[in-house]
Parts: sequence; C-alpha cells; structure tokens
Amino acid sequence: MTRDDVHIDGARLLSRLRELGDVGRGPDGRLSRLAATPAERAARNVVVGWLRELEMEVEVDAVGNIFGTWGGGGGGAPVMTGSHVDTVEDAGIYDGAYGVLAGIEVVAALQRAGHLPARPVTVAAFTNEEGVRYTPDMMGSLVHAGALRPEAALSAVGTDGSVLGEELKAIGYAGSMEPGSIHPHAFIELHVEQGPVLEREAARIGAVDGVQGLCWKRITIEGQANHAGTTPLELRRDALLAAARVVLFARELAEASGGTTVATVGRLRVEPDVVNVVPRRAELTLDFRDADPARLDDVDARLADFLGRLGAETGVRISVEELARTRPVRFDAGLVARIEDAAGALGLECRRLTSGAGHDAQMLAPVAPSAMIFVPSVGGVSHSPHERTSDEDVVAGANVLLEVVRGLVGA
Amino acid sequence: MTRDDVHIDGARLLSRLRELGDVGRGPDGRLSRLAATPAERAARNVVVGWLRELEMEVEVDAVGNIFGTWGGGGGGAPVMTGSHVDTVEDAGIYDGAYGVLAGIEVVAALQRAGHLPARPVTVAAFTNEEGVRYTPDMMGSLVHAGALRPEAALSAVGTDGSVLGEELKAIGYAGSMEPGSIHPHAFIELHVEQGPVLEREAARIGAVDGVQGLCWKRITIEGQANHAGTTPLELRRDALLAAARVVLFARELAEASGGTTVATVGRLRVEPDVVNVVPRRAELTLDFRDADPARLDDVDARLADFLGRLGAETGVRISVEELARTRPVRFDAGLVARIEDAAGALGLECRRLTSGAGHDAQMLAPVAPSAMIFVPSVGGVSHSPHERTSDEDVVAGANVLLEVVRGLVGA
Repeated sequence: MTRDDVHIDGARLLSRLRELGDVGRGPDGRLSRLAATPAERAARNVVVGWLRELEMEVEVDAVGNIFGTWGGGGGGAPVMTGSHVDTVEDAGIYDGAYGVLAGIEVVAALQRAGHLPARPVTVAAFTNEEGVRYTPDMMGSLVHAGALRPEAALSAVGTDGSVLGEELKAIGYAGSMEPGSIHPHAFIELHVEQGPVLEREAARIGAVDGVQGLCWKRITIEGQANHAGTTPLELRRDALLAAARVVLFARELAEASGGTTVATVGRLRVEPDVVNVVPRRAELTLDFRDADPARLDDVDARLADFLGRLGAETGVRISVEELARTRPVRFDAGLVARIEDAAGALGLECRRLTSGAGHDAQMLAPVAPSAMIFVPSVGGVSHSPHERTSDEDVVAGANVLLEVVRGLVGA
Repeated sequence: MTRDDVHIDGARLLSRLRELGDVGRGPDGRLSRLAATPAERAARNVVVGWLRELEMEVEVDAVGNIFGTWGGGGGGAPVMTGSHVDTVEDAGIYDGAYGVLAGIEVVAALQRAGHLPARPVTVAAFTNEEGVRYTPDMMGSLVHAGALRPEAALSAVGTDGSVLGEELKAIGYAGSMEPGSIHPHAFIELHVEQGPVLEREAARIGAVDGVQGLCWKRITIEGQANHAGTTPLELRRDALLAAARVVLFARELAEASGGTTVATVGRLRVEPDVVNVVPRRAELTLDFRDADPARLDDVDARLADFLGRLGAETGVRISVEELARTRPVRFDAGLVARIEDAAGALGLECRRLTSGAGHDAQMLAPVAPSAMIFVPSVGGVSHSPHERTSDEDVVAGANVLLEVVRGLVGA
C-alpha cells in the first residue's frame, strides 16, 4: 500500500470548517462559542452528527469531553487526535475546530481506503479549552489527564456567574463516562500556529516539540503623587518612571536569552493618570515564557534582583504577585520525528518549533506520548476574526495528521 | 517709623483661613469650591464682607473678578495684591485663599497703624484660577490683563455643561465693571509654594523671580497587537515598549538640563491592556517646563528627533499633538529685590525660586510690574486636603507682603 492511495477529502474539510465557523455566529457577524453555552452546544451537536455519520462510537464524559471512536479490530489503546470547539469572543474559524474536523476526515479517509487499523482511532473535543468563560483554560484535557478533579471543574463559576456543571446539564453534555476512562496510546493534535514563525520561514508544517512554560506576574509600584511643575526631579518617587524601567528590563532579559525567552508587558495602568501629576501608582503585568524550566526559574531570580535594586534606587515600593505559572512541556521525540517524516514524505517543508501558546496536547503529554502539528497562520494572527490559514495549508496539515495516525494505528 | 510698629494680626489671619476653609466643605468633609458654584459664592460673600468691614470700596467686573480698594490720598494707580478663592475638588485651605486673606490683613494692619498711604491698596480675588470647571485656568486674571476677551470667558462651557456667564449671574457675581479698568502700579501675590524646595532648604520665604514655561504633548504610538507567546521579539511592534522608551527619554532630557527643565509623563494608557497580548496602542502625555524659553524650544527639537529615530527603529507609528504651551514669565527684578529686602529685614531666611505652577501673577506680569512671595508647603503637597503650611510661616509670609506693600504705597 502506498501513501498515495489514502488522502484527505480537502474540499469537504474546508467546507465543514466554514460550516462550523458559522455555528455560533451572531446577527452582528461575530463568531463566539464560549464553553457550554447554547452556541457551543450547537457546534457540539454538529460534530457529534459527523462522528455518527462515520459510525463512530460517541461517548461524553462527566465534564463534557466528547470522544468518537472507530475501528481497532486488534483492540488496544486508541490513537487519539482532536482539539476543542469552544472559541474566544469574536473568534476566527480555525482555532480548535480545525483539529477536530481534521480528525474526522482522517477517519473518513481511512474508511474510504478500506483500511482496518489494528488500533482504534479516537477523535476528541475537549471542554473549555479557551478558558474565557471558566478558569482554568484547557480544563477538559486537564481533567482527562487526572490533573484536575472533575468536581472542581464542574463547580467552576464563570465570568457570567454561571456554574459549569449546571451549564453542561442544560446543554445536554453532562455525560456519564468517567473522565480519563480512555487511555490513549498516543495523542496528536493538529492546530494553527497562532504565530508568525512558519510563515516567515516559508515552512508549511510545524513539528511541535513542546510548549513553553509560562510565568505571569503582576507588579505594583507605589511612589508618590507630586505636582509636575513644582517638584524637582531628585525629590520625586515616580511610579511610572520605575514601571518604564521594568518594561525595558523585561525586553533586555528576553533579548539576552538569545531568543528562547519571550517577555511581554501587556497591561500597564497608572494613577492618578493626570497630565501634570507625577504618577503615584503603576500596575503592570509581565508574561515570561521559555521552553527551558531552568531558564524560567532564572527569570524569577533576575527579576527579583532587578526590582530590589530599582526600589532602592528610586524610592518606590514594589510588590510582585504571581498570577499564573505552567511548567514547560516536552513532547514525545518519537512522535515529533514521525511528524517530520510524514511531512517529508508528502514533500512539505517542515520546521521544528516550540509552541508559545497553550494547547490540550500539553495536558495529555504527562499521561500519553503526545505531539502537535502546526500549520501557518497568515500574519501570525489568532483569537481574531482575521485568523486565517490558506486552504492549501489546511489540507496539507490534515494529510500530515492522516499519515502520522495511519502509521500509529498500523493501517 | 520703625518696622516693628506695623504687623499682621496673625491670630485673625489663621482663624479666617480656617473659617474660609470650611466654606464649601461638604457633609463628607471634603472642601470643593469650583468656580462660580454656590459653594464658591458663599466664599465670595465672606470675603466681600471682610473687605467691607475695612470700609474698602468693592467692585466686581463682568467676569466676576472682585476688587476691594482702600486709601490712596495721593491718588495714582493702586498697589494690587490678592489671588483667588476657587479651589480644586477635595482641596486644602491655603491655595488662593491665603493670598486674598493676607491682603485683607495687610490693609487692616496699615489701618490699625494709622497709616495713610500715598497710593491705594487693592485686594483682588480672580475668577476661575484653578480651571477645574472652565478652561483656561487663570481665566479672570487673563481677562483682566486683556489677553482673553470677556465674551470668550463668559461663554466658556464647563465640564458639567454649564456656561460661566450664566453661572456668574446665578451666584450674583456678574459685575458691572469693565474688566481691566484697574491698572495696578504693581501686583504682588502671596501663595503657598506647592512644592518641596523651601522646606528642603529650610527657607521661610521664596522670592519668586518668574514662572516656568510649559509644554504639554500627547504622544500616540501605534504598533501591532500580537500573541505574547507565539510572536518572536524581532517580529513585534510593541507600542508599550516604545512608550517606555519615551518615558525614560523625557527623564534623561530633564536630567541633562542640570535641573532647569522638569519633565513628567503623567498619563499612560495601553490597548488592548491584556496580560498576554503585545500592546497595539499606547497614549501618553508629556509635561515639560523650563524658565528659559530657548531651552523649552530646544526640548521640542530633541523630542522630534528622538521620536523620529524611535519610530524608525521599532516600526511603530508615532504622532504628537500639542495640548498646551505657555511662555516662561520673568517677574519684575525690582519687586523681587524688595521681597528679599523685606524678608531680610524681618530676619527670615529667603531663597529665590522660579514657580513651577501657574498663578494669576503671571497673567498680570505683562501689564504691571509683578512678583510673588512663596511660603513653604509641608512635604510639597498641594491640591489635596493634606496641603499644609505651618502657622508661623503663614504669618511670616503675610508680614513680608505687608512690608513690600507698605514700601510700594509709601506708607
């Protein structure tokens, strides 16, 4: 059997991506499918319908994760693929949905080719990956991996005051399966990059070798409000001046890492925020990411050292609060190599990269060999209606997924 | 006649400062007498009552400026002193009120001593000095000096939608005198410093030789929003990073001036202001002040040069809008010397300084020899309920004013 005899139905994948992209689109034209809302129920129903069309066995667990399983004459643990169908507010059509629909097309392609794989193939759609409505994000996969108790997830209170468990019941997706019942042989997630690297390097496929660890800090600087005209420089304790030094320090620290650390100050607010008053208070956030846990810990130490000196030199009081922290994740080297091989076999330029964004695959990684396939995002745009991946790349990515899954299930 | 035979009734000045400081104080304990409000009318009425107690002739001009005039057997132009009785929101009791009440005490002291000055003494309370309710600030003195048409002032629309002319009528202070009718021989304003310099240098009296010129800019930086995890540093156009460089540049520019220029970034806002998104937009304000007009112009050129390079290096688009600009004011050298002499005669440590804040005296300066006397502000605090000047300094400043006025009127 040659590779050419099995391939994705690209036209159907593209048309279903667009069809699902209209589920949850409001009269204002904005696509919003927050987790466990009626809009997201509609998308779940569409996906379940497509899974059943392929005569896959559909199971829903207690936290609403959906699994469609097919084949596996030889028994054994399934090869799992998939992603999520919830979105951010005013979203694009690719993030999450692409991985789920491509998984369905992989099964369809294998069926069309008359394959009877030795292992089952499971297509998953995990609950509340985006984390917009309920915290934490990647919640469904986290529960599946045993790292969050189902009860804790179900009692999560949303930004709208809703309780996830009640909302899942209301939309008919409070399933009966115990979370984590399916132990995958491997997990492969196909996703849009959400960054500009593949496009910049003219690569069609990203073989994702891990996910950066992340550290979010909130830094609060207390200085003293003073009259901008009457207060000599040496008598000021300017909270914004100190904050500006933190912004530049974060950048320098990232630059000094040679490109592995990225650092961002996304929020900055000053008080009283008046043109002729020296700011009394500044609050900013720092987002540091690195694939190397040691380097991420090193950032902590350098930041503490810098802030200590800054406070002493400028007379401001600085406090730091950690808002979030995730360890870096290394994906399975064997799976990453399979992705590279598959891309090579299909004649697609491939590049290894580390994901800067979080994905369900990182939650699965501790319990099953896992990896991800990325396709280029035009302009690196994501979480936006302007999110886009070319049709060719959408189909190419799905064919790489097919190739990898086929190898793993022994079809 | 020796100096010791005439002095201020310090106890009455202090008690009246406190009494006036309770006029316009709300049930929440906050003092707010915005221009031409009922609260400010009450303060005007109290002041007019005290002027009339001294049998001064009270005149009100078309923009609500109040003038109380006494004496002047020899005729001629009056020596004018005074300040304002409007306040900011949640104000202290000294700013403005001190200069008006000290002027009244100067007249009372001269009367008590049986002096019949050759020139009249006029105590003025100018309308809307603070500029909180109506723009521009120092409006009454600006009109008095002929630099703003009365009709323009009267048609000013307040932050609350009110029209100044109507509000003046409503509070009974739309006077019949033509603005600018009184041409002073000299103008001396006594005021709290609103800054920390006198306190730091243990000086009791400031002989103010001018007012810094001021330049306000709004700088808008347009970059590009990007995912904080997936966007390599070299592909970012981070609006906040550029803004932080502007904050530090402003400080360096002020430091390089050797202390004559002060620079403040008082406002800074970013969009979208989200922890994991590279800021797309930053808007900040710059407040530059210098007593030397050439140096202020030089700031413009350096800023333009810096922003041009910054935009080119970082790929952000930068636009600059001028929000305000006032030329530096030099006070009359002869008057400044009289202030120093008077302080010396009274055994009070005196220091020359340039005001960093705006005052009515700077509006009078183009039309009459003018100068100001400052007394220390504890901790440099102003425009706050914590604004404070020691009782001793309040009385000392009023005695210096008395001494200077006495010399000018020939008493």
